[in-house]
Amino acid sequence: MTLEEALSSIAAREPVVRAFATLAGNHAEPCAGPLHGMPIAVKDVFDTADLPTAYGSPIWVGHRPRADAAAVALARAAGAVILGKTVTTEFASYTPGATTNPHDSARTPGGSSSGSAAAVAAGMAQAAFGTQTAGSIIRPAAYCGVVGFKPSFGAISRAGMKALAESFDCAGTFGRSVADAARLAAVAAARPELWPWPDGSESPVIGLCRTDWWDSAEPAQQQATEAAARGLEASGLRVVDLPPLGVAWVNERQSQAIAWDTARAFAWECAAYPDLLSPKFQAICARGLALSSEEHALVWQDLHRAQGAVAALFARCDVLVTPSAPGEAPLGLTATGPPTFNRLWSVFGGPCLSVPFGQGASGMPLGVQLVGPKGQDLLVLRLGARLQALIC
Amino acid sequence: MTLEEALSSIAAREPVVRAFATLAGNHAEPCAGPLHGMPIAVKDVFDTADLPTAYGSPIWVGHRPRADAAAVALARAAGAVILGKTVTTEFASYTPGATTNPHDSARTPGGSSSGSAAAVAAGMAQAAFGTQTAGSIIRPAAYCGVVGFKPSFGAISRAGMKALAESFDCAGTFGRSVADAARLAAVAAARPELWPWPDGSESPVIGLCRTDWWDSAEPAQQQATEAAARGLEASGLRVVDLPPLGVAWVNERQSQAIAWDTARAFAWECAAYPDLLSPKFQAICARGLALSSEEHALVWQDLHRAQGAVAALFARCDVLVTPSAPGEAPLGLTATGPPTFNRLWSVFGGPCLSVPFGQGASGMPLGVQLVGPKGQDLLVLRLGARLQALIC
Repeated sequence: MTLEEALSSIAAREPVVRAFATLAGNHAEPCAGPLHGMPIAVKDVFDTADLPTAYGSPIWVGHRPRADAAAVALARAAGAVILGKTVTTEFASYTPGATTNPHDSARTPGGSSSGSAAAVAAGMAQAAFGTQTAGSIIRPAAYCGVVGFKPSFGAISRAGMKALAESFDCAGTFGRSVADAARLAAVAAARPELWPWPDGSESPVIGLCRTDWWDSAEPAQQQATEAAARGLEASGLRVVDLPPLGVAWVNERQSQAIAWDTARAFAWECAAYPDLLSPKFQAICARGLALSSEEHALVWQDLHRAQGAVAALFARCDVLVTPSAPGEAPLGLTATGPPTFNRLWSVFGGPCLSVPFGQGASGMPLGVQLVGPKGQDLLVLRLGARLQALIC
Repeated sequence: MTLEEALSSIAAREPVVRAFATLAGNHAEPCAGPLHGMPIAVKDVFDTADLPTAYGSPIWVGHRPRADAAAVALARAAGAVILGKTVTTEFASYTPGATTNPHDSARTPGGSSSGSAAAVAAGMAQAAFGTQTAGSIIRPAAYCGVVGFKPSFGAISRAGMKALAESFDCAGTFGRSVADAARLAAVAAARPELWPWPDGSESPVIGLCRTDWWDSAEPAQQQATEAAARGLEASGLRVVDLPPLGVAWVNERQSQAIAWDTARAFAWECAAYPDLLSPKFQAICARGLALSSEEHALVWQDLHRAQGAVAALFARCDVLVTPSAPGEAPLGLTATGPPTFNRLWSVFGGPCLSVPFGQGASGMPLGVQLVGPKGQDLLVLRLGARLQALIC
């Protein structure tokens, strides 16, 4: 995608999609490098030296960081062109911004990386940075019909990224294709092996993982997930059906652990500007401070147990196929949809990749998610490209 | 300590000790709270809304953050009085600032939290914030004859703290007593159980851990460490002698893992101001970028093995007693001493507490370190107070 194509899509679609919090007024000549000329968008929780950075909060409106976040600096040095900062929910939490779903402006694009997913879906950027703490990359990618990649926890430096809950915060990427998401992630992680890929002959065993929340998925989402697994099977891979994990409590536990971290990370905002925090955000902080250390230790005991349960799955298979979200993007713009099918993997910390696959009852895009063991990012990306090829 | 006492010590000793990068010009009326009126110093890697924050680097001179780091905001809201920002080595790495050891101005105060340790030692602050990635709290605490506390990894939020190597960076505190270090840490972690302590009747089993580096410790340091263990034994606790761990390679491995993280975290500085980075820092970044992902994975395989070796020690005892440093603060101000006796515990992630104990051949203070399993911060602090009482 050229810069001109991106700018032309922005002119045509941004008035309705509202993906950007700030658009760059001019674009410097890109550096030479593996991303030379790639037009990208950056979620507004990453600091940028040349654009305001407000973290989706009125408290930070007009803030001008002195430096680029590490991921942004790496992308820029590799030749990416920063189109602008994309809308995030308040501090990458739950209170949505103005972005609409490019496939239906009456529906949420998902969150918290709302603008990044929507910008890529609307052809306004070739790739984009996002972050995921619960389900903030995979869910909006599925809702907007683009690829979302949350790499292994820690793979992309969080320096210069606004912290929400350090125990889980993970930077990642969006792209119209697996290759585009991988290309930006490879640079941001400074792991050149993540893109381009050598040809490979690997035959990973696929685990079809319906999870403990299968019944809450829409029928079309269930069908898409199973169809993805069957498609990979037809392409020559072995697929094993995995039983439910019995960890349904993990969603509530992660929510508590996030509240603990958030209440501490936002001590300055809570002290200096309490009235400029949304009621939802205030409630999260209050919840985090109400937990005792003993309760917090028990929460983590459970989370470690959930991590162990997921790790045990990888004794039986190499990569999981599982829903990216309960179904298509819900109607309405006052919420961003539930991270039901995301929290377990954010807790686990392995790479997650959402690939557009199938359609919901209203014709909206669905996503199917691949999950690998920590460090197996390349395996997941290559399998994702294979899955994507099945539907092209 | 009153504000007036702190300011009077600053007037008397700062010209030689040079602990502060910036001194506050005026001091707001402190908030009500558990730290009401406590004069504290803040390592200049924590953002402060009212004082410049330069991270020990010419690149950031004059930088004015918009917000306090989370730890600073929590301390301020609890009534602490921020005296100023203390000297850090360049980005909390190896190139020293101007601080001298308050016990002998020809000697290093240790680093990277040089100014915080020295300020507390010189009576210029009651407590102070520091950070440790390899040995940057425990070693300067030992060299300066004060208490240093590196809590469990993650206990104090790193929001608003300049990242060096996210895999290990840990915020902590200094105090003239264990109680003072605990008091500040309890507020910064928002874990009120860490101070004040209820009376307790616990009898932890002590593991005397000479480590794989015992022969590199000065005789006086060996004696102090053994005397601390024998003192705790005489006070009624059981002491077991632990064999060497056989993980001497962990120091080199952590150094590689830090370089990997650092090279990525400082992508902006490396791109925008490469000439303002010290040759040492440039070399760390170059080393981090030269590592392949395969090599990095092997480094972490070894680090996980080291974590397992330490965890196994805690099947035999509850808290380790081990040297804080190889001995007394070395002569000279061009280096901050080696983190030989610190890296293993920073990799492990459990709470570490250095308590002043004994003297070196030149009459400089020595420190003995207590190390506990992750989450056992309270146990380590209470045992530290008991150890401190032995020498008072």
